[in-house]
Amino acid sequence: MKKIVILASLLFVIVLGLNAQKQQRNEISIPDVGGYKTLKCDFHIHTVFSDGKVWPDVRVMEAWNEGLDAIAITEHLEYRPHENDIKADHNRSYDIAAKAGEKFDIIVIRGTEVTRKKPMGHINAIFTKDNNLIANVDSIESLKEAKKQGAFIFWNHPSEKYGKWSATQDFLYKEKLFQGIEIVNSSRYYDDAFAWCNDKSLTIMGNSDVHLPIDHDYDLLGNNHRSLTLVFAKEKTEAAIQEALVAGRTAVLFNHQLMGKEIYVKEIFTKSIEILPQHKLFKKSIRNKSLLMIKNTSGIEFSIKTKSTNTEIKISTSMVLKPNAVSYIEFEYNPSEMGAKEIAIPLEIENILVGPSKKFETSIQLRLITE
Amino acid sequence: MKKIVILASLLFVIVLGLNAQKQQRNEISIPDVGGYKTLKCDFHIHTVFSDGKVWPDVRVMEAWNEGLDAIAITEHLEYRPHENDIKADHNRSYDIAAKAGEKFDIIVIRGTEVTRKKPMGHINAIFTKDNNLIANVDSIESLKEAKKQGAFIFWNHPSEKYGKWSATQDFLYKEKLFQGIEIVNSSRYYDDAFAWCNDKSLTIMGNSDVHLPIDHDYDLLGNNHRSLTLVFAKEKTEAAIQEALVAGRTAVLFNHQLMGKEIYVKEIFTKSIEILPQHKLFKKSIRNKSLLMIKNTSGIEFSIKTKSTNTEIKISTSMVLKPNAVSYIEFEYNPSEMGAKEIAIPLEIENILVGPSKKFETSIQLRLITE
Amino acid sequence: MKKIVILASLLFVIVLGLNAQKQQRNEISIPDVGGYKTLKCDFHIHTVFSDGKVWPDVRVMEAWNEGLDAIAITEHLEYRPHENDIKADHNRSYDIAAKAGEKFDIIVIRGTEVTRKKPMGHINAIFTKDNNLIANVDSIESLKEAKKQGAFIFWNHPSEKYGKWSATQDFLYKEKLFQGIEIVNSSRYYDDAFAWCNDKSLTIMGNSDVHLPIDHDYDLLGNNHRSLTLVFAKEKTEAAIQEALVAGRTAVLFNHQLMGKEIYVKEIFTKSIEILPQHKLFKKSIRNKSLLMIKNTSGIEFSIKTKSTNTEIKISTSMVLKPNAVSYIEFEYNPSEMGAKEIAIPLEIENILVGPSKKFETSIQLRLITE
Amino acid sequence: MKKIVILASLLFVIVLGLNAQKQQRNEISIPDVGGYKTLKCDFHIHTVFSDGKVWPDVRVMEAWNEGLDAIAITEHLEYRPHENDIKADHNRSYDIAAKAGEKFDIIVIRGTEVTRKKPMGHINAIFTKDNNLIANVDSIESLKEAKKQGAFIFWNHPSEKYGKWSATQDFLYKEKLFQGIEIVNSSRYYDDAFAWCNDKSLTIMGNSDVHLPIDHDYDLLGNNHRSLTLVFAKEKTEAAIQEALVAGRTAVLFNHQLMGKEIYVKEIFTKSIEILPQHKLFKKSIRNKSLLMIKNTSGIEFSIKTKSTNTEIKISTSMVLKPNAVSYIEFEYNPSEMGAKEIAIPLEIENILVGPSKKFETSIQLRLITE
Repeated sequence: MKKIVILASLLFVIVLGLNAQKQQRNEISIPDVGGYKTLKCDFHIHTVFSDGKVWPDVRVMEAWNEGLDAIAITEHLEYRPHENDIKADHNRSYDIAAKAGEKFDIIVIRGTEVTRKKPMGHINAIFTKDNNLIANVDSIESLKEAKKQGAFIFWNHPSEKYGKWSATQDFLYKEKLFQGIEIVNSSRYYDDAFAWCNDKSLTIMGNSDVHLPIDHDYDLLGNNHRSLTLVFAKEKTEAAIQEALVAGRTAVLFNHQLMGKEIYVKEIFTKSIEILPQHKLFKKSIRNKSLLMIKNTSGIEFSIKTKSTNTEIKISTSMVLKPNAVSYIEFEYNPSEMGAKEIAIPLEIENILVGPSKKFETSIQLRLITE
Repeated sequence: MKKIVILASLLFVIVLGLNAQKQQRNEISIPDVGGYKTLKCDFHIHTVFSDGKVWPDVRVMEAWNEGLDAIAITEHLEYRPHENDIKADHNRSYDIAAKAGEKFDIIVIRGTEVTRKKPMGHINAIFTKDNNLIANVDSIESLKEAKKQGAFIFWNHPSEKYGKWSATQDFLYKEKLFQGIEIVNSSRYYDDAFAWCNDKSLTIMGNSDVHLPIDHDYDLLGNNHRSLTLVFAKEKTEAAIQEALVAGRTAVLFNHQLMGKEIYVKEIFTKSIEILPQHKLFKKSIRNKSLLMIKNTSGIEFSIKTKSTNTEIKISTSMVLKPNAVSYIEFEYNPSEMGAKEIAIPLEIENILVGPSKKFETSIQLRLITE
Repeated sequence: MKKIVILASLLFVIVLGLNAQKQQRNEISIPDVGGYKTLKCDFHIHTVFSDGKVWPDVRVMEAWNEGLDAIAITEHLEYRPHENDIKADHNRSYDIAAKAGEKFDIIVIRGTEVTRKKPMGHINAIFTKDNNLIANVDSIESLKEAKKQGAFIFWNHPSEKYGKWSATQDFLYKEKLFQGIEIVNSSRYYDDAFAWCNDKSLTIMGNSDVHLPIDHDYDLLGNNHRSLTLVFAKEKTEAAIQEALVAGRTAVLFNHQLMGKEIYVKEIFTKSIEILPQHKLFKKSIRNKSLLMIKNTSGIEFSIKTKSTNTEIKISTSMVLKPNAVSYIEFEYNPSEMGAKEIAIPLEIENILVGPSKKFETSIQLRLITE
Repeated sequence: MKKIVILASLLFVIVLGLNAQKQQRNEISIPDVGGYKTLKCDFHIHTVFSDGKVWPDVRVMEAWNEGLDAIAITEHLEYRPHENDIKADHNRSYDIAAKAGEKFDIIVIRGTEVTRKKPMGHINAIFTKDNNLIANVDSIESLKEAKKQGAFIFWNHPSEKYGKWSATQDFLYKEKLFQGIEIVNSSRYYDDAFAWCNDKSLTIMGNSDVHLPIDHDYDLLGNNHRSLTLVFAKEKTEAAIQEALVAGRTAVLFNHQLMGKEIYVKEIFTKSIEILPQHKLFKKSIRNKSLLMIKNTSGIEFSIKTKSTNTEIKISTSMVLKPNAVSYIEFEYNPSEMGAKEIAIPLEIENILVGPSKKFETSIQLRLITE
């Protein structure tokens, strides 16, 4: 009886002043694992002081908005296209960013990028003391100086373009001149780099390598964010991050793809999901039917494939667990056929890699009720 | 040195099967208050069995998707435009919805709508036992029968069109033939109805009165949802909801507008926000400057006006606390002028009403640091 | 000098009545081709009169909102789970929808679904005259009656579950008891069905098979819409749609995937994009560099792979042409090496199929400027 | 019969490389008026060369993305907080931006900002020839030099904070040292400035005054964009823009609020909307009922209030015309009561101002059909 499509008596007001100034921070919800704090970090960032396009304090504001805990400022030592306009040494951009970091409570780490053509490619050193001393025409000397300063050194975007593992890397590896590799840089994933890290106990990294304003490179709507290195650190301090990097306690997260050692990603997954208590059955013919409801409390969207070969239970083969939501699939079973009351459903998590091209597999227990 | 605008080597795949089927539930995050559970309820809903446009089980699926705890199915007794096609009694739509409610763990409450022109207008009875007995050409008899069945009765959308408070309502009120009023129906808010509820100790209600699929009436993106009655119940059961309604323990939430008794909405606000520990100062000339960071853990967006008349502190006059985010404003003060180290900042919360046109006022304590 | 992060003097008003009632229609922008009008159609739709969940007029409102031109109402003849409540013949839901169609200027086509287990599977007949005469325990008789009524008959979702091409389909095909196949149903694409259509001159179809409210099955944000059959019709009338279906003038569009005969999809692509006039070069070392800007005036997002093997020109290998937007990629060339001033860039359009697993290939001409 | 909630056989693929790099331009659709081209311009922009936070070429990329035609780079002459790091004259940022402008086909205009406390406030000069000559401790000399260079001069954000119209402005106005005023700056609208422009034939301006990356200040989703000056120019050239500014042919657009002389905004509105041909009536009791459908082809959302006092026709009092969409409202009339077949419906467009606090009023003709 009420009119359905009437749109009456709306109050329209001139509301200028409504622009969504980004004075807000969206936390990225990922569980702590192994007794460590899970810190969201980006260790590869440029500003106008090398070939980036924003002032260093913008990097801190962006990190704060996006829910990050720590960033490293890593200007190229050798490539400074703005040097006719900007007169500053190799530490200056860090100094500016670090001051903004205090304001926003973001950890800012001093770093720099040693930039060569392949086979050397690009190499980042972070936790440096004085970048000016690292600048050197001899790149090996640069890395040695960085190492001397106590830096954590990692190899950036190993690829056709910038060079893959070669005799040069063999040498650097033997000399302990790098301890990690970016398996994700910006929006590219390097499957072979993941293998090298596993084989040689190098730390996996995922970084943005952002040059433009972050919104230009990433669509930050919803639960999206830049490529991240998740660091499992004893506490939220610069020293604890460094200790975790050296110890190899990282995972990589980008675009809802999680990569890392099974021990860490398994705990992230397990702590993120919760199987809700079984609801009432709704029978259909002779088979029992029910909903399997799973709550995902993390900010990661999980894509799950059920691999049940159990013929007594019929279950949808896939489900998507949206972030911060409850999702369900239907399942059916014939109570008379079922011997056991509990059944394990093997799962393959499509968006978690525990090694190169190796998807994470686990299982959940379903408790079946026969009325 | 990295190319900025290159878009290389993307992997494009034919991904059919990507449509966002709504198999997910987004919880509406609102704190529990007064030792009660805060349940999200909609007590005014139609289906094809009166003049609605969907099958009753759709109402349950919609409620589940949207994060509701309980709904009432309230078909018109007198207005049934589909009756040439649908042959069913006045309880049938509830029965269908209730079965779906078991599947999805949504509380479904039997109800009905007594539909008259003004001055009587439309009146809902919920927690009824048999709607067929309530159908009656004499509307007073209808309400008496509903009362006899133990129903909670409330007056719908009191307005110019459907009737405002008149002698009829005086009579019904004296006879205790209604106990609540919709101060929000669909997208309309009735300020005078809020006053009547306060004056006469009637329970405030906010309901959708949805006829079409819920997505037609509401943009359910982000943290949006339908008009809701928040019920502060002892537990999540039908009986506890009824007890809370009778006791007047409700608030109304629509479009990030919260209305209710100060005792409840104050606790919702207080539990929703958290003032983060003070970060380092960043000085500017002779005045100290710092960021006030506030975390909003609820799903409600709060619009705040600071009303500080303290001349020693300079603070932005407004801020918006987005749901599930940290927001900040800058403030400045001159440490030498400041006597006290603590200062109260009076706030007016623009989107919380504690009475008709009466905004909720509160204050926060700022601890000022002089270095 | 202006404060950056101030958020001052916002005007907050209680604006109830803001809910986004769907009283708007978003046109799906696709060019007309071959001198025909491109009509957006969905020929497979259910309502509460069979196993759907909404009243028939909702299907018209949904179609209007979504930018469709025509829909067919195709209830199951044999599967009517609501028949205890809904007493109506097999034409009733069409009659209700058709009346709403007049209101919204949407073409509503009478149809029905003959529903059998495999190998027969589900078959739709549209442009029927009286569905009651088609209901028959003998499914062949049903189809013969539909044919007698002048219906266009097509096979729904051919798949493992509902049956693939078998002796049954050989028989039906020889008897001319179906003229088309759904190569897309809901969110599933059947590559082999596309092959059968090509081999046997059957009309390709793409339909929603929607049962729930359309928003439940599809995320209709942005440029998204349900699975569609594009019909290239002489005019926007029911008769012209039927003529085009019989003549096989269709394409299928879902989730920005376009499938169809090369003659049609090529013209859609060609008319949708416009290469903007070449802008000024910006030199870099000895190579000329410029932007290739392409405007996409359609509502379809095109994913393009450039396949240039020309060594004189260096161009990004992929680009995405967002709907209703201009996109660009950079290219570089050495003017001294270039003999010709025009160069053809071969393209593969990743989201257009002209046959089963066969991507559409075309090329664009680049005019190179040597200063 | 089809399962409703099954989510089967989805294909999940590791798709890295999906980040939405902003290589696309969304045109802002606004009709040309008065035989002129409607250009979208922002004449108040900062970069790292004064107190902004991005490199000048970013401003061009942002403008291209957002659908702008022209921008002016207007660094503060006096306020250069980065000058310890950046050594450059007052023309340098323009030079960098201008080069990027050639690449993206965006008109970049040289400008500068003379920055004083109130009562003078901040004043922009654009179309300058050499900003170094304008820098002067005597602000009047600055403006005289700018005028000598042929600049168009306008007063920025006149407000309590930066100064309102005073004797200083009387003087500058008499000396013809400014020709326009920002009635919108960033997200603030100055109603009194609109009055001053109308009274004194000054050109109205609306600009972003952006310092941070544009995404930080504006939510650029959907049809949103920064505050703009619409310039009605003879052609898309820098000279034509200057001619139009001097002639006062501008309007201001922000957040779907349009301000300007009635002659221009009326034509924008009239050309933006199209009343669709009347559809069939659908009777209800003794009154005819029909839908009024209006297509809005612009990118501006119009909020309309119908003000009909005609008692013979009943029409919804408000409607929102979403951008690039068809919207409708219902209307009813009694054919026997109606004398005329045509009826004018007076409209108030809530989001168009033709003067300070003066909403634009117009009317549409409805052709009523009596069957």
